[in-house]
Amino acid sequence: MAITLADLAARVEGRVQGDPDREICRIGSLSAADGGAIAFFDRGRPRSELEHTRAGAVILAAADAAGYPGNCILVEDPYVAFAKAASIVHTVAPATAGIHASAVVGSGAFVAESVSIGPNSVIGGGATIGERVRIGSNCSIGANAVIGDDCHLHDNVVIYPRCILGRRCTALAGAVIGSDGFGYAEDRRTWLKIPQIGRVVVGDDVDIGANTTIDRGTLDDTVIGDRVKLDNHIHIAHNVQVGADTIMAAYVGVAGSTRIGERCRFGGRSSIAGHLTLVDDVHVATVSLVTHSLHQPGMYSAALPAIDNRRWRRIAGRIHRLNDLAVRVRRLERRVKVP
Amino acid sequence: MAITLADLAARVEGRVQGDPDREICRIGSLSAADGGAIAFFDRGRPRSELEHTRAGAVILAAADAAGYPGNCILVEDPYVAFAKAASIVHTVAPATAGIHASAVVGSGAFVAESVSIGPNSVIGGGATIGERVRIGSNCSIGANAVIGDDCHLHDNVVIYPRCILGRRCTALAGAVIGSDGFGYAEDRRTWLKIPQIGRVVVGDDVDIGANTTIDRGTLDDTVIGDRVKLDNHIHIAHNVQVGADTIMAAYVGVAGSTRIGERCRFGGRSSIAGHLTLVDDVHVATVSLVTHSLHQPGMYSAALPAIDNRRWRRIAGRIHRLNDLAVRVRRLERRVKVP
Amino acid sequence: MAITLADLAARVEGRVQGDPDREICRIGSLSAADGGAIAFFDRGRPRSELEHTRAGAVILAAADAAGYPGNCILVEDPYVAFAKAASIVHTVAPATAGIHASAVVGSGAFVAESVSIGPNSVIGGGATIGERVRIGSNCSIGANAVIGDDCHLHDNVVIYPRCILGRRCTALAGAVIGSDGFGYAEDRRTWLKIPQIGRVVVGDDVDIGANTTIDRGTLDDTVIGDRVKLDNHIHIAHNVQVGADTIMAAYVGVAGSTRIGERCRFGGRSSIAGHLTLVDDVHVATVSLVTHSLHQPGMYSAALPAIDNRRWRRIAGRIHRLNDLAVRVRRLERRVKVP
Repeated sequence: MAITLADLAARVEGRVQGDPDREICRIGSLSAADGGAIAFFDRGRPRSELEHTRAGAVILAAADAAGYPGNCILVEDPYVAFAKAASIVHTVAPATAGIHASAVVGSGAFVAESVSIGPNSVIGGGATIGERVRIGSNCSIGANAVIGDDCHLHDNVVIYPRCILGRRCTALAGAVIGSDGFGYAEDRRTWLKIPQIGRVVVGDDVDIGANTTIDRGTLDDTVIGDRVKLDNHIHIAHNVQVGADTIMAAYVGVAGSTRIGERCRFGGRSSIAGHLTLVDDVHVATVSLVTHSLHQPGMYSAALPAIDNRRWRRIAGRIHRLNDLAVRVRRLERRVKVP
Repeated sequence: MAITLADLAARVEGRVQGDPDREICRIGSLSAADGGAIAFFDRGRPRSELEHTRAGAVILAAADAAGYPGNCILVEDPYVAFAKAASIVHTVAPATAGIHASAVVGSGAFVAESVSIGPNSVIGGGATIGERVRIGSNCSIGANAVIGDDCHLHDNVVIYPRCILGRRCTALAGAVIGSDGFGYAEDRRTWLKIPQIGRVVVGDDVDIGANTTIDRGTLDDTVIGDRVKLDNHIHIAHNVQVGADTIMAAYVGVAGSTRIGERCRFGGRSSIAGHLTLVDDVHVATVSLVTHSLHQPGMYSAALPAIDNRRWRRIAGRIHRLNDLAVRVRRLERRVKVP
Repeated sequence: MAITLADLAARVEGRVQGDPDREICRIGSLSAADGGAIAFFDRGRPRSELEHTRAGAVILAAADAAGYPGNCILVEDPYVAFAKAASIVHTVAPATAGIHASAVVGSGAFVAESVSIGPNSVIGGGATIGERVRIGSNCSIGANAVIGDDCHLHDNVVIYPRCILGRRCTALAGAVIGSDGFGYAEDRRTWLKIPQIGRVVVGDDVDIGANTTIDRGTLDDTVIGDRVKLDNHIHIAHNVQVGADTIMAAYVGVAGSTRIGERCRFGGRSSIAGHLTLVDDVHVATVSLVTHSLHQPGMYSAALPAIDNRRWRRIAGRIHRLNDLAVRVRRLERRVKVP
């Protein structure tokens, strides 16, 4: 959508420097944007990118605008303002409504007239597909599943029977919602499967990454709160509850029956053991493992950065002999009469 | 299936307390079960859940049944007994046999009459699909693959050509069985691919999780033993052998040519290096890395739980200077004449 | 393809010992090869495998050939020579060209006559599918995507709109190329999505593993260099650049905007934080985490092998009290007047 710089600035709560009538109709990076595009400049980028941009306008902090001769919008948080500007300027054309001739819709399914269903997708019997939902190619939507208004399921997505997605959710390609939880009872050294008859219930405005899996609950439901954002390759096990506005980077794994609060953040590849409770506003660092419930908000970590391999090998050896070292220190303390 | 409490108790080797004629026809959780459902109560759950349940009957340990006024079955291991009860009560209606009109079956494939094949699934030429096999939507079964009796392949599952599944196996959505192993020879700083012409051979009663991948062998086969249970996002590399009754939680990765014994257990995100041998009854803890063959049964671990981030950062610094600390301790020992 | 041992030896730069006219028409392992097959023997394999093989010929090092009575080709690096021999002997019959009747090709797509497209695959409008490309079953190729000559997309692969694959690339089942990057700006404790409008641009001769995901760039492109080899379950985030000839084992995760040099090697489950630069010829060990840019080639590591669980638990406790130990050592040093 085309919009003047002045109007755009008003909508992102910024101030124009330069030509308020400049028309903006695209977003772009500093390096690739042309005269019709708006870009942003943020801390940590080389100043030269700003100096050489041909963008029609740039969103940036007032402190960075000094000496920049081009059009810009001055804001407090350029990244947030750019996100808002992008949502205004970068409008995606709605998909043409209709069910592709090769798609298969089961008996008793309700599909709103405004829905778009791609080729070779399959909608199970009794499923409900809300207004303006877009479903890509080769998706499998199970019987009696419910997909809320304005959801967008990309290609090759699987939604299992009876699972529920709220409104405006996105599932990227290869995501699997509602697979059986991994529940077995050990009986005489072999494994008896527990039927997994719960559902996955997803709130509104949830984004689910490519090849991410969310298992259905065993007897009750797995529940994903509103506005949760999940990156690729995530694993949410059965009966897990994830609070609203929580965000997880790639490969985060949450074991069964754990309850996670609101506004939590999980770095990539962090792991949360089963049957725990994490309160609101817990942050877990990249690749760290949580083995106990966390009752205080704050940042938790146990990741060790990689270093030169020869140096590390010496240290790894020391770690494995750390008990011995502690015993020697105790002996020294006794010898020199430290209490 | 409806069954009286008395009959059900007999089949799970338990003892009725309460009304032996109560009819049970469902399973449920303590909180959601109604009068026709059986639930279970296990250590670690709050007693209040038991006290407030409206379940028709509860499976629990004799020690926990004291004072509970409702119907129950007293057993030694409630979880195991519930698994058995569920397999009796929670019968899944067999899929209607038949090949959906949109499915594609290659020439020379053998598909038993009792098979159910979902919409848009593809069966390669020469494949064999055994009795009562259920195949979901959008599956791709390669040429000359063999799917044993009573297997259930969920939606969007891929079985590569010539791979073999035994009887009663389950593959959840997005599972990939038989992809090429990752085999390259380094030649003058570039990579030559080794053809991967082996198969994946899966035993009976194996469960394979959502988006899990099992690579085919390079020249010989990758072999998964009977009753192996694999969670989501697992990676089994080429030529690996996994012994019977072994169980792996999500994200377990096994590198090429490793042989794993029977009844082993792998915590989530544990990693096993290539070309190793692990004997029977090895347990590997969550996120731990195995770099050497393990010749003794038992539990192996190297996982460090996350702690408060500021505290961790101090410790991480100490770890990277651990060599220095050890040198200082040695110097102290010399100074005070510790041998 | 059948070839005499003499001709094969010449093409792999080796020397025949035995019958130069022996005809070879297959590859195989030492244990499974028959008289028409060539196998290889490499360091680390038990000598008995060589002694008992019935292979028509064996590729091996001169040092290992002493005393072996069978036909062989003597080479410097048996694994490399076998890779070359395999590429000569193990020729895969080209797929029959043609678009399966159940495949759906969008308007304006260009599909070369020599292309093979499997059942129920979907080609988006405006896509370009180059000469001799093979596309399996249930693939989804987005609008305006470009698939270079001689690429092979296995079953259930997803290529998003506008993404570009060079020539001779392979994508195994479940791979997803071009999913939205995970980009959100935090605004008043909730998350605003940044549109992801860049592409994924993949070079020539790139191999992409099963269920691996490569996210499209935010505004610019995600770029994968020539001859890069990616194993299963890999995650390449938005805006990442991977240099030519780099190889990554399973589960490697690269966070957003990181630039990786040429000929780098990443062990399984290694993690690279975002916004870093890694120079050429960096090797990262299995499960290690890189948190800083690496300006020197070499091997980096921080992985701790699993040990007996009881021993590990003692050590883990020591690690969490390492700060205390260091303080005690300092006190000892003061007491005994170490400077």
